[in-house]
Amino acid sequence: MTTDGLASYDTVTLLSDYGTADGFVGVVHSVIRQMAPEAGIVDLTHDIAPFDVRGASLVLARSVQYLCPGVIVALVDPEVGTARRSIAIEVAGGRAVLMGPDNGVLAPAVGMIGGADRAVILDNPDYLLETNATTFTGRDVFAPAAAALCSGVAFEDLGSAVDPITLLPGVVPLTRLEDGVLAAEVLWVDRFGNAQLNVDPEEIEEWGSHLDVRTGSSRRSARRVTAFGELGASELGLLIDADGLIAIVANRTSAAAELRLSAGDEVLLRPIGDDDDGDSSSAGGDAVVTQVELGRSR
Amino acid sequence: MTTDGLASYDTVTLLSDYGTADGFVGVVHSVIRQMAPEAGIVDLTHDIAPFDVRGASLVLARSVQYLCPGVIVALVDPEVGTARRSIAIEVAGGRAVLMGPDNGVLAPAVGMIGGADRAVILDNPDYLLETNATTFTGRDVFAPAAAALCSGVAFEDLGSAVDPITLLPGVVPLTRLEDGVLAAEVLWVDRFGNAQLNVDPEEIEEWGSHLDVRTGSSRRSARRVTAFGELGASELGLLIDADGLIAIVANRTSAAAELRLSAGDEVLLRPIGDDDDGDSSSAGGDAVVTQVELGRSR
Amino acid sequence: MTTDGLASYDTVTLLSDYGTADGFVGVVHSVIRQMAPEAGIVDLTHDIAPFDVRGASLVLARSVQYLCPGVIVALVDPEVGTARRSIAIEVAGGRAVLMGPDNGVLAPAVGMIGGADRAVILDNPDYLLETNATTFTGRDVFAPAAAALCSGVAFEDLGSAVDPITLLPGVVPLTRLEDGVLAAEVLWVDRFGNAQLNVDPEEIEEWGSHLDVRTGSSRRSARRVTAFGELGASELGLLIDADGLIAIVANRTSAAAELRLSAGDEVLLRPIGDDDDGDSSSAGGDAVVTQVELGRSR
Repeated sequence: MTTDGLASYDTVTLLSDYGTADGFVGVVHSVIRQMAPEAGIVDLTHDIAPFDVRGASLVLARSVQYLCPGVIVALVDPEVGTARRSIAIEVAGGRAVLMGPDNGVLAPAVGMIGGADRAVILDNPDYLLETNATTFTGRDVFAPAAAALCSGVAFEDLGSAVDPITLLPGVVPLTRLEDGVLAAEVLWVDRFGNAQLNVDPEEIEEWGSHLDVRTGSSRRSARRVTAFGELGASELGLLIDADGLIAIVANRTSAAAELRLSAGDEVLLRPIGDDDDGDSSSAGGDAVVTQVELGRSR
Repeated sequence: MTTDGLASYDTVTLLSDYGTADGFVGVVHSVIRQMAPEAGIVDLTHDIAPFDVRGASLVLARSVQYLCPGVIVALVDPEVGTARRSIAIEVAGGRAVLMGPDNGVLAPAVGMIGGADRAVILDNPDYLLETNATTFTGRDVFAPAAAALCSGVAFEDLGSAVDPITLLPGVVPLTRLEDGVLAAEVLWVDRFGNAQLNVDPEEIEEWGSHLDVRTGSSRRSARRVTAFGELGASELGLLIDADGLIAIVANRTSAAAELRLSAGDEVLLRPIGDDDDGDSSSAGGDAVVTQVELGRSR
Repeated sequence: MTTDGLASYDTVTLLSDYGTADGFVGVVHSVIRQMAPEAGIVDLTHDIAPFDVRGASLVLARSVQYLCPGVIVALVDPEVGTARRSIAIEVAGGRAVLMGPDNGVLAPAVGMIGGADRAVILDNPDYLLETNATTFTGRDVFAPAAAALCSGVAFEDLGSAVDPITLLPGVVPLTRLEDGVLAAEVLWVDRFGNAQLNVDPEEIEEWGSHLDVRTGSSRRSARRVTAFGELGASELGLLIDADGLIAIVANRTSAAAELRLSAGDEVLLRPIGDDDDGDSSSAGGDAVVTQVELGRSR
């Protein structure tokens, strides 16, 4: 990936927990459009559950490789108005800048695309809206900063430089293999009820065509498939999803509803045919997490 | 309608059952924008119920005459990843191309605007995203194909030609007149509770100002009106709606909720004053459907 | 604010109770885009509750100062198709035109930005879509009129001039101070459960750091804060929100849910330490309202 050093951003991609009913998103669009009329705006989603930093960080991480080069803004901040800083992180040799509160929401995405090049705190008053509000940083801080970048303002002029290593890391759950059982976690349940796990296909490559799937409330067999349509009416499947991760799926019905799975739940996987000692009725144990540090890219 | 033979598409209109919470739609926008930066994107709706091919086909059919010339993409596919083909259909002398799975979702709209000129299967790898995913054809198949058309790629280069007559037809319910009773079907219940029927105004033109409306659960009188506001508080109306079809409506409340009507339900209409034999307590009988064949336009 | 007299509108901002499921919004976008391809379209929100003229008028009033100059269209009309007129109001020396039904939905916003310069009824058939529909004025009346303005049509050519003073005013609730108690009203509950009151910070400036908050169902103490994060887990706060009004808030939870507050509810505020006579168990009394008249701007 190369850059000519002269960044020219023409797209702002937005992600938030603002919902679409209150007019917040329309106001953010309006501010950007007035300050950078030529920039295009793409809404990734605004239906993140209120305050769900983890959910937002995972949407962003799984989407980021498909997003337009430019400015990407994540607006999910339970601590808005406190000492929590608003930051911008330059990535991919300047092809993109990610912005958001310094609460870890950007970290998994930054990690996905090679790490942070440099970072600033958005504290230059020239690129803030002059209001006294403390609660609507999307309108007052991030929209004008994103528009500034699209208007040719240099990244370093947005505010005080900060070492990326000092920014809050994100946490991404790791699987744990113990006694032949893979303890995984539901990252996300989509609209169709597919439950994406934090499992790389390689982790279960040798485990054959059927796996034992145990959740807090049930135990089922699931078959490796490559399309929903291969499954029978009451059958569960394990499929490599569009993000390249293993998802528990069903055919035209919600696998997550059937297994009562939500994001964050633990799922135990093992090959069919292993011993079943019968006493492991509850899926226990804490998930192991790893920090995605925002170290400099190499 | 004329065309100079040199199609120039500058708008992609999208319709899906993706919802707006998962980021799917934002990713589709992002892929199109990167591959065809000049194209405008219009979202018709993404809130089609999951897998509801019929509902999507009807939204598209009733909207299509108002949509921008260009590429129109319908993304509702319960059989994604199976042998189900992804297709594109050229219509209206090249003014528009409709794309979607070959499951009938496009057929009613194609019929509305004069039939198919020609069709291709989207199998040219030059215009597919290189992923191994089988589940996200919106991102991997339709977005790049739509962008290709907007970038000047010729329709016939998108993939293998296929005779439109071999594509899956859609089914549109027909009314049935029997013993002076018109058996109709609810096509759609909108946000305000208006229940659109598959009834052309001409079918009830001679039936006077009040009609008897019988549903599975109730029997009511309804008055022909031209505005919701003409109706009293507990009155039902029959109105020629914005699509030119008869809808059962109420004033500032949901007619569909009051009659417990959903899309697909049968409704029996007849003039007030006819005999009532008393024993027809349930609305019975199967709806007659007709195939909308994707034959060549004339 | 100045204008060169030659209005050039390049943005249409839309607000409606259409929802996003039925395709109505996509059709309105499509009509505007075909008639004014260069205009940008911003969606403020389409999730106004059906027929909620008051709610729409308040969203518009609190957002209007941040919206792009250009055409702003409010589509909420319980009386669509009746004698209710469709109007356009020029404001701010021609920098913007607000359009909507003549039901008061525009009045608070017009008042916020200095009053009406002039107004027309949208009755010029040259700028209406030729349909027989009475129910979809967004598509048939407002979209073509908005597009016409963006294409250079003069304001006065849209239809018959009308004196702004004859248009339906909006009603905005006023607070009432009686015996040291401020009777306020909930204007809006946002997605996060913050309950915006019709209270200017100056009204409670001298009342100290803690206030007594009484609603129909409960009585609580609330603390003046500048950020949600200053509040303890079960504490209520009073915060100057992003619109400059007092809102009842909580930290990472819904204050409105805790107090069972909805838009329109009355809230009684007073300084802590005042006498409590014990018999005022219910928040009574009618709110005082003031008319926002659409008189000429000065």
